Amino acid sequence: MTMEELIIRNIKTLGIDMIKKAGSGHPGIVLDAAPIMYTLFSRHLLYNVNDPHWLNRDRFVLSSGHGSALLYATMFLCGYPITLEDLKQFRVYGSKTPGHPEYGVTEGVEVSTGPLGQGIATAVGMALGEEILENRYVLEIGEKRKKIEKMFDYHVFCLCGDGDLMEGVALEAIALAGTWKLNHLILLYDCNSVSLDGDTTHTLNEDILKHFDACGWETLSVSNGNDIKELDRALDKAKKSDRPVFIRIKTKIGEGSLLEGTNAVHGKVLDDQDIEQLKQKLGMPDTPFYYHEGAKQVFTGLLAKNTSAKYQEWATEYRQYQTSHQEEIPKDLQFLFQREFLDPIEKIEWELPDLEEKIALRDLNHMVMERISKELPSLIGGSADLSASTKTYIKDGGDIFPENKYLGKNIWFGVREHAMGAILNGLALTGFRPYGSTFLAFSDYLKPALRMTSLMNLPVTYIFTHDDITIGSDGPTHQPVEQLAMLRATPNLNVYRPCDMKEIIGCWHDILKRRKPSALIVSKNQVSTISTSNPMEVERGGYIIGKEQNVVHAILIATGAEISTALRLKEVLLEEAGIDLRVVSMVCMEHFLEQPKEYQEQVLIPYTKVFVLEYASSLCWHRFVYNDQYLFTVDDFGSSGSKEDVLKARHLDFDSIKEKMIHMIK
Amino acid sequence: MTMEELIIRNIKTLGIDMIKKAGSGHPGIVLDAAPIMYTLFSRHLLYNVNDPHWLNRDRFVLSSGHGSALLYATMFLCGYPITLEDLKQFRVYGSKTPGHPEYGVTEGVEVSTGPLGQGIATAVGMALGEEILENRYVLEIGEKRKKIEKMFDYHVFCLCGDGDLMEGVALEAIALAGTWKLNHLILLYDCNSVSLDGDTTHTLNEDILKHFDACGWETLSVSNGNDIKELDRALDKAKKSDRPVFIRIKTKIGEGSLLEGTNAVHGKVLDDQDIEQLKQKLGMPDTPFYYHEGAKQVFTGLLAKNTSAKYQEWATEYRQYQTSHQEEIPKDLQFLFQREFLDPIEKIEWELPDLEEKIALRDLNHMVMERISKELPSLIGGSADLSASTKTYIKDGGDIFPENKYLGKNIWFGVREHAMGAILNGLALTGFRPYGSTFLAFSDYLKPALRMTSLMNLPVTYIFTHDDITIGSDGPTHQPVEQLAMLRATPNLNVYRPCDMKEIIGCWHDILKRRKPSALIVSKNQVSTISTSNPMEVERGGYIIGKEQNVVHAILIATGAEISTALRLKEVLLEEAGIDLRVVSMVCMEHFLEQPKEYQEQVLIPYTKVFVLEYASSLCWHRFVYNDQYLFTVDDFGSSGSKEDVLKARHLDFDSIKEKMIHMIK
Repeated sequence: MTMEELIIRNIKTLGIDMIKKAGSGHPGIVLDAAPIMYTLFSRHLLYNVNDPHWLNRDRFVLSSGHGSALLYATMFLCGYPITLEDLKQFRVYGSKTPGHPEYGVTEGVEVSTGPLGQGIATAVGMALGEEILENRYVLEIGEKRKKIEKMFDYHVFCLCGDGDLMEGVALEAIALAGTWKLNHLILLYDCNSVSLDGDTTHTLNEDILKHFDACGWETLSVSNGNDIKELDRALDKAKKSDRPVFIRIKTKIGEGSLLEGTNAVHGKVLDDQDIEQLKQKLGMPDTPFYYHEGAKQVFTGLLAKNTSAKYQEWATEYRQYQTSHQEEIPKDLQFLFQREFLDPIEKIEWELPDLEEKIALRDLNHMVMERISKELPSLIGGSADLSASTKTYIKDGGDIFPENKYLGKNIWFGVREHAMGAILNGLALTGFRPYGSTFLAFSDYLKPALRMTSLMNLPVTYIFTHDDITIGSDGPTHQPVEQLAMLRATPNLNVYRPCDMKEIIGCWHDILKRRKPSALIVSKNQVSTISTSNPMEVERGGYIIGKEQNVVHAILIATGAEISTALRLKEVLLEEAGIDLRVVSMVCMEHFLEQPKEYQEQVLIPYTKVFVLEYASSLCWHRFVYNDQYLFTVDDFGSSGSKEDVLKARHLDFDSIKEKMIHMIK
Repeated sequence: MTMEELIIRNIKTLGIDMIKKAGSGHPGIVLDAAPIMYTLFSRHLLYNVNDPHWLNRDRFVLSSGHGSALLYATMFLCGYPITLEDLKQFRVYGSKTPGHPEYGVTEGVEVSTGPLGQGIATAVGMALGEEILENRYVLEIGEKRKKIEKMFDYHVFCLCGDGDLMEGVALEAIALAGTWKLNHLILLYDCNSVSLDGDTTHTLNEDILKHFDACGWETLSVSNGNDIKELDRALDKAKKSDRPVFIRIKTKIGEGSLLEGTNAVHGKVLDDQDIEQLKQKLGMPDTPFYYHEGAKQVFTGLLAKNTSAKYQEWATEYRQYQTSHQEEIPKDLQFLFQREFLDPIEKIEWELPDLEEKIALRDLNHMVMERISKELPSLIGGSADLSASTKTYIKDGGDIFPENKYLGKNIWFGVREHAMGAILNGLALTGFRPYGSTFLAFSDYLKPALRMTSLMNLPVTYIFTHDDITIGSDGPTHQPVEQLAMLRATPNLNVYRPCDMKEIIGCWHDILKRRKPSALIVSKNQVSTISTSNPMEVERGGYIIGKEQNVVHAILIATGAEISTALRLKEVLLEEAGIDLRVVSMVCMEHFLEQPKEYQEQVLIPYTKVFVLEYASSLCWHRFVYNDQYLFTVDDFGSSGSKEDVLKARHLDFDSIKEKMIHMIK
């Protein structure tokens, strides 16, 4: 057996042994895609295991995240910082080798994957990130700066399976990759024609090459997934393409197992007998976790050798760039090292609207974003074809179009909320601070990607407008109800709902400073600037925005545009009924709940009646009140009609609330 | 001007007047797609306005739901039960003409639409429904029943725009329609190449015909969307196809407006001057809401005439079918009239597992479904390529494949959760009682479709397994946390989480009886049958499953597999600490919250300490407890590892909970 064969077989046996020891995992892909992994990692991937954060490294994304054993075994054998012990701890709590690849847990894993389709769409985002970097940052050399060297010029390789290509998020992203001509993206399709439930003839019988061709991709076909030379040629060709490239590679699922070619081998541990015959067939020793030291050395050497020249060359160029751009560097590239921060409260002088003037919160947010965007090269983003409504388009920012060499700040996602989310993840993984916008009701469409944002702890900002049932006559399909609850229930996501421009500035301050997954909810309702609002208080999440006159009779919590209503209620209740109300702005519930108890009780005085006003699901609010009647919230679907009619029908208009509060407090 | 021209122009002016009066709406599509609507409704659609529920009627789906004014104006002019007054009430609260088409509000609107992509995918479900009916129910005529007449043979026409074709849910459904060879589906693509944000060259520059062709559709092209003859020919051809048909129709957005061809006309009310010149150009009177009585009569007559013969013929066949199938009818077709109900508690004798035996809840659910499915022809469904894990495949039920003439009970959706949801909606609209299954974590993928289920109040059952962080080593991507909160926050959705086979039977009883949107959550954890569980109690949502010995010291609410843990805790707390615990099974929180206060307080005695055990987000539970410490819930992401390790790391294992409860109760 040749050294190549030995390495490939060793990947297979290690993967199988890992799954066996763990008692769960997916042998099917380990056995069919090992040659693909070997060819990619030994001959194409440029990656320095000693400098895993090298800016110009190639990225590898395992969209078929269930193939984690395959990935870890490959990484171990080509010198990534994964030990044999790590392989033995596969799927054990706290190990470096979890059941699906996890970003931040395993050095070298570039993206968390598992939910199908997400990997492909995230890879599209990473490839877009590459184009932006490649075109933005160039080294101009020689007399009159005639020669231009690319500072960034790396590939994003993504391995996917049949299931990935059925998911809508992948299909949306595939359309965009073609539109955007992302020629640094290479998608390797492990075409074993079997998914979890069986043969894919009943579920995926389209002409997939034609489909990709229609979407503007170059398509290649490898007829034998075991043929290293054929794989190698395809990859060589793919790297030279001027379009994204799709390589279909025919494989046999679970090759060598007694269950090969069937769905039974997809996600079930092989039994002892099967493993025994498999290892025999492969000519590999029976010992569990056997590995060939020579093979490991050769494989490690191949990866290192391929990468070395390019790495050295890049380091030199990078130093040259540093020298020639001495002054610009801080502003230009610091964000790639996460060292960029702009303090929008301290460093920008804001012109606030007149106290009398009423402006929609989405428009105020637009003003804030326009200003911040000027200062932050890393802040890029767009909308799922609703920028006219969500107001997140940066004027004079330019568009990130291929015709434009990707030199801009605005991304056009089309009506593709889900791909937008995953692409934002890819851009964040590249180093950007991306944002994406749509209506709050349509946050449902991108929830799975937003969950990955939260899980990977990426600095992505989702901007949602049209945020409650008062949006007017578009009706219940466009009126969010349960979405705020959904977002607030999502772990590791900060949800902001500011009430005026000052709070919006505070939110952006907090978002930029914390670098956390964030959702910024800005109403299309018009509000006046509130004299007592305070951007500095956003970091505590909730604060007194309407102080009681004397003695607190009751507390009213509100958020967003409802703050204006709450403050009016305060005034009228005092005037008409002598009720002394305190109004609390809960601009970010997550932050408030993290405050010390003393602060929380300072704001929400114990044994005081607490009311809540938010035109959305009550689910988030029960913790603050003693009685459901104190909740002015919405738990049914909205309806088409004017804001006034819609609120009146639910007895949630100003007068109804006023009456109810007087009745309940008196 | 010909009568045809007059009708088309009248559709346009009425639509524009409606939008003007409402002060919002979408003129773009009204002006470009009126000829399409006219051609379809006057020459092809078979629909009897006097019998809107005719089983064999053609279905029309306006996937571009923002074109509601176009739809209502067309319906008015061809005799649907919509009055001029209704048109004047466009977008007014409580009217029959809401901002987007709403099923159940306007007679003749077959589907609620608005969120893009949903309409196409739902239409695919309706076309699948047609195939099932068509092949299941045939009239055998003559000697030896040689001649077979189709009882069902209708078309599903769907009008969509550019935005619809970008959405993942549509792309998933398009792939399935091709795979399923749904030749009664005709998709009319209003190709105006402009979406909300502008020209679609930057967002949709794929070769769309090639894309559909790759997916197995027949593709046709109409070069001039104003040419009735060309449109007519295309529709004629489409109806004869043996595949689903995609017709691309070139149009000009907002044709005739001063803003024609631009995105400015997509969703903005035309100003007075524009309307004036438009009506002049069209040769129509200036009067708002003018309509030509003769045109209305002619259009109404065309629709009626086209339909009449077919309608009569069908009625005769239907009577023949009734006669020849006298005995089968009740079982066979009753479901189409929603008259089918099976009482699984009373009418089926169940064999429960031995009390000692531990079986996974998903397997118990499978046993229940197998049995119920035999009795209910309307119960069909499938899984998003996870039937091996969710256990919802009906053995011997047969598969709904084209090769199989759709004669079966199992649908193969592939890894397409989102399209699955929308297709289930389409099947429910056809009359079926469909279900679909996937992991609970992936409910995120189908949320927008599930929202439409709830909004349309359709009897769809979503079955979710792998329902908390105890699923084992697949890790956080596969472990749901916030999903139960998301589902419980969704209006009009019943969420069930049963604890054993008896409760599962009770859930199905409740689901079948109520005909409501439902989510059934069945764990992969193994449980024993609980002697005190009661299927009859499901309808009250929560009940005492573990009665106190004597005096209640505290109450522990739990759901699903956690009930077993809760009952063990009850035993051990009594034994070890003399604590007398009551355990409440909250199998359906929605139902419990609807019970009279007396019942609620009977179960959850006021002034008694209440604890909650559910390995998911706390958000749903605050209303029941006084103190967050009483919640044994999960608000962070899960982790890859064994169930025991994952729970221990969060101090949520049996012993930790026991200790904490003793500490807090004593």
